Amino acid sequence: MELWFTEQEQEQIRTSWKAEEVLFRSQSEFQAVDVIQTKAYGRMLVLDGCVMLTDADEFVYHEMIAHVPALIHKNPKRVVVIGGGDGGTVRELLKHKGIEEIILCEIDGVVVDTCKKFFPKVAGCLDDKRVKVKIGDGIAYMKELNQEIDLAIIDSTDPIGPGEGLFSGEFYRSVAKALKPGGLMVAQSESPWYSNDILGRIHRNISAGFKHKRSYMGAIPTYPRGLWSWTMAGQDAFSPADFDRARFNDIASGLQYLSVNMVASVFDIPPFFRAKLDVNE
Amino acid sequence: MELWFTEQEQEQIRTSWKAEEVLFRSQSEFQAVDVIQTKAYGRMLVLDGCVMLTDADEFVYHEMIAHVPALIHKNPKRVVVIGGGDGGTVRELLKHKGIEEIILCEIDGVVVDTCKKFFPKVAGCLDDKRVKVKIGDGIAYMKELNQEIDLAIIDSTDPIGPGEGLFSGEFYRSVAKALKPGGLMVAQSESPWYSNDILGRIHRNISAGFKHKRSYMGAIPTYPRGLWSWTMAGQDAFSPADFDRARFNDIASGLQYLSVNMVASVFDIPPFFRAKLDVNE
Repeated sequence: MELWFTEQEQEQIRTSWKAEEVLFRSQSEFQAVDVIQTKAYGRMLVLDGCVMLTDADEFVYHEMIAHVPALIHKNPKRVVVIGGGDGGTVRELLKHKGIEEIILCEIDGVVVDTCKKFFPKVAGCLDDKRVKVKIGDGIAYMKELNQEIDLAIIDSTDPIGPGEGLFSGEFYRSVAKALKPGGLMVAQSESPWYSNDILGRIHRNISAGFKHKRSYMGAIPTYPRGLWSWTMAGQDAFSPADFDRARFNDIASGLQYLSVNMVASVFDIPPFFRAKLDVNE
Repeated sequence: MELWFTEQEQEQIRTSWKAEEVLFRSQSEFQAVDVIQTKAYGRMLVLDGCVMLTDADEFVYHEMIAHVPALIHKNPKRVVVIGGGDGGTVRELLKHKGIEEIILCEIDGVVVDTCKKFFPKVAGCLDDKRVKVKIGDGIAYMKELNQEIDLAIIDSTDPIGPGEGLFSGEFYRSVAKALKPGGLMVAQSESPWYSNDILGRIHRNISAGFKHKRSYMGAIPTYPRGLWSWTMAGQDAFSPADFDRARFNDIASGLQYLSVNMVASVFDIPPFFRAKLDVNE
């Protein structure tokens, strides 16, 4: 038989992946957690029917969400990752020697356990001694923190389902409160090709918490429409103009997506995307 | 009823678009030519089952294939477009005041007629007095030319079907012969996410015709995996380092994808794509 997994991507578009095998199916307290073996992209983690990561292209998302803020921050030492239970973001952050402690707060322990089993190259890093894994609600955890972290990385699912609260103005305000002076937040902020309605809510809410924000993009072939965005925010202005090239060189040999010039020009986004963000201010 | 158009994208992946209406179906001498009205991206031109352009995102492909070479060339006056019967590439080229003549050589007159009818904002430019439309074989036409054009733009379909010969080493050699000194070719060169097998043939063949080549990319949501590449080639080294900002400013107000900084860094491609090209040298 032919086995196809189909992701319903918004109402109007579907993408289907030929599957060799269904490796794992589960319904956790929070969501459906499935792993399939695909022909085109290797193993694929699917949460509530949406592709979260695949063996073949997870490097793009994880390099972009981790290294861009870690390089633009002056000297990050203590980092909190909210969501990101697959471990990919933590794996990339660990490449920065200056980072002393990473706290991962993932609401769904089933995601962590599943990724340790089926994606050991991604989740294996969660056993590193610089990493502390908390299984719990990222919204509640963030409220506990007061000016004690350098970077907050919001590595969430989409703004429906368990990830919804991670896109609220109230949450972004508590992230702002958790950051030390000079601290930065990065949040995954959906596809630049999405409608103003979807992007608008995210960007207005980030602005409710932060004085400055700038978005950047990366091409992810297994995400809807192949293009994704992240938004960096802080209370002080920030820029990649003077990021530390030496710190880039320390991590460069392992990178597959990010180049030094891409970091330097990371906020140069196309006019069509800039126009959507301006509309939503 | 629900109507869905499905593109089979390589063997392992399918993308389906909800369609409101089938506006036109035809089998030309060369290929199936269809137009559908989609919910998500407006009108869509489909050749042999593959999405060629849509109302909503055609600006990306056409800005990238036209303006990047037109800006990097020192002073383009005479341009040949092979393929590109929809007219989008010509429309963008016409924005350059210095370009005096554009010859479009499209093998399939049905494509030109269909686009004039269903995509007037794209194909309307083909009636401009600086444009000469030839319906005929681009391979034969290119052989006739000797050092008489500044830019050759190979705006082809995929390397199977009617477009196949436009990816051969023999064809690229005849393009090289057609160019004036300092002339440049740009060819669409498929998705960076495609396999080494597919990309390899294209890049080895371009190298058979040209001493220098450099690839660049753009995000196209309705193309396979959302990311596309173009490859620029010439007998002399070329670089965007000293392109004429004044010429960019002349066209800037109409651009939706390309920014001035993107032109300056257009050949800074991610390491994963660079590695594929190096493997194929």
